[in-house]
Amino acid sequence: METSSITSHKITRISGEGAEILDDQLAVEEPLEIQIAFQSAGRSERKSISVTMRTPGNDRELAAGFLFTEGIIHSKSQIDGIAHSPFDENRVIVTFSAGFEPQIGSLERNFYTTSSCGVCGKASIDAIKTRSAYANANEGLILKKELLYRLVGQIVQHQSTFETTGGLHASALFDVSGQFLMLREDVGRHNALDKIIGTALLADQLPLDKNILLLSGRASFELIQKAAMAGIRIVAAIGAPSSLAVQLAEESGITLVGFLKNDKFNIYTGHHRIQ
Amino acid sequence: METSSITSHKITRISGEGAEILDDQLAVEEPLEIQIAFQSAGRSERKSISVTMRTPGNDRELAAGFLFTEGIIHSKSQIDGIAHSPFDENRVIVTFSAGFEPQIGSLERNFYTTSSCGVCGKASIDAIKTRSAYANANEGLILKKELLYRLVGQIVQHQSTFETTGGLHASALFDVSGQFLMLREDVGRHNALDKIIGTALLADQLPLDKNILLLSGRASFELIQKAAMAGIRIVAAIGAPSSLAVQLAEESGITLVGFLKNDKFNIYTGHHRIQ
Repeated sequence: METSSITSHKITRISGEGAEILDDQLAVEEPLEIQIAFQSAGRSERKSISVTMRTPGNDRELAAGFLFTEGIIHSKSQIDGIAHSPFDENRVIVTFSAGFEPQIGSLERNFYTTSSCGVCGKASIDAIKTRSAYANANEGLILKKELLYRLVGQIVQHQSTFETTGGLHASALFDVSGQFLMLREDVGRHNALDKIIGTALLADQLPLDKNILLLSGRASFELIQKAAMAGIRIVAAIGAPSSLAVQLAEESGITLVGFLKNDKFNIYTGHHRIQ
Repeated sequence: METSSITSHKITRISGEGAEILDDQLAVEEPLEIQIAFQSAGRSERKSISVTMRTPGNDRELAAGFLFTEGIIHSKSQIDGIAHSPFDENRVIVTFSAGFEPQIGSLERNFYTTSSCGVCGKASIDAIKTRSAYANANEGLILKKELLYRLVGQIVQHQSTFETTGGLHASALFDVSGQFLMLREDVGRHNALDKIIGTALLADQLPLDKNILLLSGRASFELIQKAAMAGIRIVAAIGAPSSLAVQLAEESGITLVGFLKNDKFNIYTGHHRIQ
C-alpha cells in the first residue's frame, strides 16, 4: 500500500484582512529507498541503490525508471519483480531475473543518489553522460507548431495534485498527434520523469521515439539525459532550458523546445522537426 | 577564474507572426567537483566528495557551504584554503587545516552527491537528518507582516540572472529589519542556499539566527535541513512547502512561511514569531 500524495496541515493565512486559520493541502515528500536483490556466485545479494525524496505514488514505476535511466538495467526482462517492503512503505525492492547480475562498477557509481538528479553517483565529471540504448534519432518525426501550442492546456488539465498544492513538478507524455497518454507528478522533477519512463518500460513501450515529452518546469541536463536514455526525440518545457541541457539535446539529436505557451515557444535544438 | 553564469544560444522563436531567429540567454549549468585535501596518519589524502550540477560563480563559497551543511566541517577554522584546480575550472579543492581529519564514516555517506539535494549520500532513511550545531532557537525574534511583504520586491530587484534567463533559483538573506544582505543564484536551489551559507561561514557570520532566509521557489526538506544547519530561524518561500519541509521546520523550531506575496502569505510553522 502506498501513502497519499497530499496531506493536510493547519496554517495561518496573513493578508490585509488579518489572520485566518485554514486547512492547507501539502504535497507529500517522503524518502524512498530503492533496493535491488540478485544472485551473485550462487549467493543472494541485496543492495541499497538510492534514497530519493519523492511524492508517494507509482513507486514501483519510479524504481524501474530510475534503474533504467541510470543504466543499471537495460530491459524489462531483467526484472523479475518489484514490491514494497512489507515492513516499510518507503522502501521498494527490485528483484532481478535469474542470470542477470548488475555490473558492480556501475553499482558503486550509482550507490548514492537522490530525487532530483540523474548525475548522482558519478564520481568523475568525465563519467557524467550515461549511454542510451536508443541512440538512433527518429528523423522522420515532424510536428506542426499548433500541436505544441495545444499541449499546455492539457498538462494543466491533468495536473491534479499541483492544482491542489501548488507544489509539484510534472512530466507528461503525448503521441505524435498530440493525444495525451500519461502524466506523473512529484516533488522531484527527475522522479516525475522516471515514473513516466518506468511505466513505459514495464508496459514494454520503450523506446519512446514516437512521443512528445512535456516538462512542467525547466529543462536541466539530468532531464535531457533521462529522456535520451528512453529514446525520446522531442522535449518541450514550460520553463527555460539550461546551457548543458541544450548541449546534450544537440549531441543526442533531441528537439528541445522551451518557454512553451499556447501561442508561442522557443526552439533550442533540432529545428528541423518543427514545421 | 570562473566561467560566466550566462551563455548565448541561437534559437528560433515560433509565434503567430511566424519564425524568428534570435540570440537567447541561457543559465549556465556545469558540473562542479568538490575535492577535499587533508593529512591522515602523516600522509596527504585527496578525496572527491561531490559532483554537483551548478551555475558557475561563488564556487568557493558553494564548496564551503556544502561541506558545512552536510556536516563534514563544523567551523571556518577547519578550512586552510579553497582554490580552483589550476587544470579544471569545474573543480574546487578545499584544503583542511593541520590536525583536522574528517570522519571517514561521514565521508563515505557523503561521497556521492548532487546539485539539488542535501539528502544525497545518506544510504539509510534513518540517517537522513543531519544534526545542526545551532539547535537552540532564537525565540526572541519577532517580525511584523509588513516586513515580510516587502521582501518579495527586493528579491526580484536583485535577481539579475533570472531576469535575463528565466532559469535560475535564488536564495536571499535579510536582517531582522528587512534590510537586504545578499542573494545567490543557481540552477540548483540547494546550491544557491549553500552559496549563501558558505559566504556567511567564510565571513565568520554563523549562526544566521538573526536573519530571514528568502527562497525564490518551493521549500523542500533539503532546503530546511540546510537552513537548520546554519541556525536560520525564519524561512520565507515564494512557492509551496512540502510535507516533510513543514515537519522538519516544526521539529527544528523554524518559522516557515510559504506563498509569500507583497500583500499576503501563509504561516506553516512557528506562528509566534510573526506579529
